[in-house]
Amino acid sequence: MTIKDIAKLCGVSVSTVSRVLNNRPDVSDEIRGKVLDAIAASNYIPNNSARDLVKTKSDTIGLVVRGVSNPFYTDIIRAVEKKIDQAGYTMVMQQIGTGDDEIKCGAIMEREKRLQGIVFLGGRSDYTSAEMALLNIPFVCCSYSNQYGTLDPAEYSSVSIADEEEAFRAVTELYRSGHRRIAALISRTDDHAISELRYRGYERALQQWHLAQDPRLVISTGTFRIQDAYESMKQRLAETDDFTAVFAIADNMAIGAMRALREHGWSVPADCSVIAIDGLEISNYIDPILTTLCQPMEEMGTRSVEILVDMIQGRSGHRHELLPTTLRQGASVRSLT
Amino acid sequence: MTIKDIAKLCGVSVSTVSRVLNNRPDVSDEIRGKVLDAIAASNYIPNNSARDLVKTKSDTIGLVVRGVSNPFYTDIIRAVEKKIDQAGYTMVMQQIGTGDDEIKCGAIMEREKRLQGIVFLGGRSDYTSAEMALLNIPFVCCSYSNQYGTLDPAEYSSVSIADEEEAFRAVTELYRSGHRRIAALISRTDDHAISELRYRGYERALQQWHLAQDPRLVISTGTFRIQDAYESMKQRLAETDDFTAVFAIADNMAIGAMRALREHGWSVPADCSVIAIDGLEISNYIDPILTTLCQPMEEMGTRSVEILVDMIQGRSGHRHELLPTTLRQGASVRSLT
Repeated sequence: MTIKDIAKLCGVSVSTVSRVLNNRPDVSDEIRGKVLDAIAASNYIPNNSARDLVKTKSDTIGLVVRGVSNPFYTDIIRAVEKKIDQAGYTMVMQQIGTGDDEIKCGAIMEREKRLQGIVFLGGRSDYTSAEMALLNIPFVCCSYSNQYGTLDPAEYSSVSIADEEEAFRAVTELYRSGHRRIAALISRTDDHAISELRYRGYERALQQWHLAQDPRLVISTGTFRIQDAYESMKQRLAETDDFTAVFAIADNMAIGAMRALREHGWSVPADCSVIAIDGLEISNYIDPILTTLCQPMEEMGTRSVEILVDMIQGRSGHRHELLPTTLRQGASVRSLT
Repeated sequence: MTIKDIAKLCGVSVSTVSRVLNNRPDVSDEIRGKVLDAIAASNYIPNNSARDLVKTKSDTIGLVVRGVSNPFYTDIIRAVEKKIDQAGYTMVMQQIGTGDDEIKCGAIMEREKRLQGIVFLGGRSDYTSAEMALLNIPFVCCSYSNQYGTLDPAEYSSVSIADEEEAFRAVTELYRSGHRRIAALISRTDDHAISELRYRGYERALQQWHLAQDPRLVISTGTFRIQDAYESMKQRLAETDDFTAVFAIADNMAIGAMRALREHGWSVPADCSVIAIDGLEISNYIDPILTTLCQPMEEMGTRSVEILVDMIQGRSGHRHELLPTTLRQGASVRSLT
């Protein structure tokens, strides 16, 4: 079934069918109804690629998700989709691997899908202005910002938590519970992104509360994977277990580490306390329930779209919003005082 | 930067640049190199939509993922992507919600992306031939089959586990460990899909081993969500706790239920054993480690693509493969014998 068949069926010209498909006003309601009914009753599917090429303006917003397997993104994606829909736009999503280039992906989507704007969910924190010149539409960094890049804050928008501050807060929770020997489970100290920021918060808390900084208490896994967190913690425990608490920069990493702690003969929190950042749903069901700083996933997604739509519609310029986390009092931290 | 700018820059015609972009042989190596260098050095990104429209044949395979938040899909997606790449094709992925229509999505992608074939990851198990007529290319159902539909097995391919058999096996594991009062945690008894199939396996095992079928031991949550599993189990425990083991049709549901069991004052597996089907990575790190039948996620993805590529290249017809699960001996099942 082609556009010609539909035209024939309705006794109208091909360009009339095309006008209906493109929501053009210069078609009578009667004809419009007839064409849409014929399309609905047939197996004809309009070729949107072709249609997009002749349309002068689209109503599409892109969502580029970097790190397909990050469970933390699920709720954000749902919120972004809902808000884009409410704002009267259509979402086009593309998921890419952790090693892929989200800017290039966004730039290709911009042209192919004639995007009005982009939400980047996860990405590097060290963009340069030259790289971003590939994009000719407004974009929002969702769940991260650009602390290590050279982008002018007036060139882009972001919605994230204050990673360093929140890490400081998590470690301070452990300190207030009487812990003095606190290990950090991180990806890297120098990833120029979230791991480095949260590691800095850990360091700053140790300084603030006059706790000794001991390199043996910094466990770098190189990734955010559960298995790597488990193995790194296991390895470190074979060398030293001279700590009473662990700050993990992500829930998943905390879950991996907790298995290593159990295999070391320790009980959480009796022998070792654990606190993390993220607030994954599943960490609220494990034993013990993980004490963690919950990111406001839904709000993060919603605000990203609101800011983007404001920019698209010219109502406001670039904005940078830091959203607060909420402490989930689980059962993985024990008070020593 | 447009295609005209590139042409000007290289001192060639627009149609020469176009020939290079479309990998046409009628361009000298010298000119080809010059054009590609100019493109690489510029901010020009070819408009693939437009290019796809003039190409007569694409090398694209579609992956339609239904149920964005299913953690079970992550490893399958990775394997599918790798295999498509190895086979010399390009993957285009589209994720849709549980309530969306994967056939329609696939049909639109077929036209827009000029797909050569489709892998459906997750979907309904009750397709009709009329519905599938929307698709004009071969497709493979990955991780599910079509037991409740009217499709001729010669019309499509599938790669999945034998859901009913595997559920039978899981319940039989509990029976062999001495359990006689076995509860089932399912989504629905009549979803005409995976939940119904696994419920049937549970029923068949009870019959086989002459165990009483008690409707109070069938806990239907209506979804596959952790929270719903937790709440349904909690509610049921308020009415009866006359069972010594639970068969959960999915790891996530088992994890939700285990929190309810703990809050009931029970320890797993001392007071109640739990077995599931799936084999999520995270369930290998919780306490106790979940005993579960692991689906061969990677192999499922790989075989789906292999079968599809064979069909695309005319090497073979439709196939239906059932892959075996592997029992992960965790610590959530206690022997009563």
